[in-house]
Amino acid sequence: MILFDSEYLKEFTSKLFRCMGCPEEQARIAADCLNQADLRGVDSHGVARLSGYVRLWELKRLNATPDMKIVHETPSTAVLDGDLGLGLVTAPHAMRIAIDKARIAGTGWVAVQNSNHYGIAGYHAMMALEHDMIGISMTNASPLVAPTFSKSRYLGTNPIAVAFPAFNQPPFVIDMATTTVANGKLEVLQRKGMDAPLGWTQDKDGNPTTDAYSLKKGGSMLPLGGDRDHGGHKGYCLGAMVDIFSAVLSGANYGPWVPPFVSFLEPPSTQVGKGIGHFLGAIRVDAFRPAKEFKENMDIWINTFRNAEPALGQERVLIPGDPERELTIERQKNGIPLHEQVVEDLKELGRKFRLNFEVNPENQSK
Amino acid sequence: MILFDSEYLKEFTSKLFRCMGCPEEQARIAADCLNQADLRGVDSHGVARLSGYVRLWELKRLNATPDMKIVHETPSTAVLDGDLGLGLVTAPHAMRIAIDKARIAGTGWVAVQNSNHYGIAGYHAMMALEHDMIGISMTNASPLVAPTFSKSRYLGTNPIAVAFPAFNQPPFVIDMATTTVANGKLEVLQRKGMDAPLGWTQDKDGNPTTDAYSLKKGGSMLPLGGDRDHGGHKGYCLGAMVDIFSAVLSGANYGPWVPPFVSFLEPPSTQVGKGIGHFLGAIRVDAFRPAKEFKENMDIWINTFRNAEPALGQERVLIPGDPERELTIERQKNGIPLHEQVVEDLKELGRKFRLNFEVNPENQSK
Repeated sequence: MILFDSEYLKEFTSKLFRCMGCPEEQARIAADCLNQADLRGVDSHGVARLSGYVRLWELKRLNATPDMKIVHETPSTAVLDGDLGLGLVTAPHAMRIAIDKARIAGTGWVAVQNSNHYGIAGYHAMMALEHDMIGISMTNASPLVAPTFSKSRYLGTNPIAVAFPAFNQPPFVIDMATTTVANGKLEVLQRKGMDAPLGWTQDKDGNPTTDAYSLKKGGSMLPLGGDRDHGGHKGYCLGAMVDIFSAVLSGANYGPWVPPFVSFLEPPSTQVGKGIGHFLGAIRVDAFRPAKEFKENMDIWINTFRNAEPALGQERVLIPGDPERELTIERQKNGIPLHEQVVEDLKELGRKFRLNFEVNPENQSK
Repeated sequence: MILFDSEYLKEFTSKLFRCMGCPEEQARIAADCLNQADLRGVDSHGVARLSGYVRLWELKRLNATPDMKIVHETPSTAVLDGDLGLGLVTAPHAMRIAIDKARIAGTGWVAVQNSNHYGIAGYHAMMALEHDMIGISMTNASPLVAPTFSKSRYLGTNPIAVAFPAFNQPPFVIDMATTTVANGKLEVLQRKGMDAPLGWTQDKDGNPTTDAYSLKKGGSMLPLGGDRDHGGHKGYCLGAMVDIFSAVLSGANYGPWVPPFVSFLEPPSTQVGKGIGHFLGAIRVDAFRPAKEFKENMDIWINTFRNAEPALGQERVLIPGDPERELTIERQKNGIPLHEQVVEDLKELGRKFRLNFEVNPENQSK
């Protein structure tokens, strides 16, 4: 692992998106979204993914200069056609529309069709916070997850993010895949040569397994809960809900038709919609009660739960968003650790776009 | 178990609510909500709970003639003060407001404060279906669930329901507690003298346990996922989200301050809001795309997932709502099975209100 200065990585990413043709403002937002993923510890969704976006763009499966259009709307809703743009661009654009609608109608809800991978769900939800709004964000994704009782990979990890503002406390931020774990955790076990707990994945026939490589051998990820006895059908419900809001409501591809993020897999030959889909929401807090009153009660909620009695052997009880915020502070100070493979990827991208990705002390931790 | 005719039970329940002073229309709706729980197999939320509502009313912790008022609103939102009414009455009232708002603003969102237990979450969400709307329903509940890493009972089973209309297919209906299992499943194991799977509950110190009586011994239920390794922190996030939408946004009691449903437990001496809270939403499908187009795509989604390949040893893949709908058909035909204790409870209620709950063949299955 090599530590890199967060600002240097963000600047490099932004320049690279500019080289692809992204307008300046869009390149800046897309880079910020990847950078926030790295700072928050979602390493799989940060600069590690940059070369993936580039490959999709090279294959013309991603449009760097999308002409995004609202194709239908009401006072509190809209459908945005992302014109096959970066989800890192279409989702923030949709969120701004949702926020604008919430100002007038109390809430705003924007379904996005014809988009691509949008980075971390939490980034878009958190955009609402500075407006004293609650932000909601979800997206469907490449199918890797089997519905309960099935061995078919029909759902993505389909994340949900919800961000609530607080007063003196930091905001309360949920950002979770609707599977038991993210794929990245399996990769960590593979590197360590360790088995996975039961309930994370199943093999290609749908049997329970602890094989950390099961997914690569044709198996599938399990919805949050794992098997039926442990409530896996509820995780299936959540993943399905995200798929329907993101794609059936917006007119994007759903279920097994979701185009894969990885460039080495071809998109399905038939389509039931356009691109992948997202669903973004903004709820003006004072459409319900005065913002200060709500936020002060959020402080009480957070304080109360933070001071809940730890279970035997535990030190403290966490509030959603705590670990990511703490890591952000640490990584802003000490830098973002990148795998050698990611560093090689970035160097290669630098050569391709004549951007010169430098591995030297100045670009590393300050 | 004794089988009873569904209509007879509904009629009895409705009359009983009338005796408590409920207006006729409200009594009918409240009875229908309990009846739907019995038909759908959520036996803990049907007539089995009737005596509980009566006891709360006797203690004046529930108001049978509430003066429900909208205390704040915008084009797409409202806060309803339930005046300590039956949740079985305040939630459907709130849902009608949400549906009316959705007609004009595209979506409608109503937070309810000062309410009581509202039965099954799915009932209220499903009200949206006949209007070609998506229905959303959530509520907080008596604290029995510990946040991840804690042994404090700070959350309820806090259910989420979402109902999507389809075209030729039956509607897609999610109705799930945000815990691994409902309390009723523990009671089933207790009756059978069986242990519970790991991940359902923990003991009073926060240790993993398979003791089906752990909850009665001061332990707590675990959020969906169970322990941290299996994603229990995600279930904690979901339960917290429901608590915040239902109560922090509406001005009801949240976390450990939620008043208990059972009459033998006193409500907490301090309050942070009024009563318990719900959050109801209605989304007009054609605020996004033509209803027929959406519903036809829902049919494709449902058909696709229903025909997913079963895992080894499984017969078929279910769609959310399938088991409840199949059971409803069966119970409408053969009757609703009631435990002897529930039958005794209903007889006692009959004597108290001079309603004569009859256990004879005519009231049983047709």
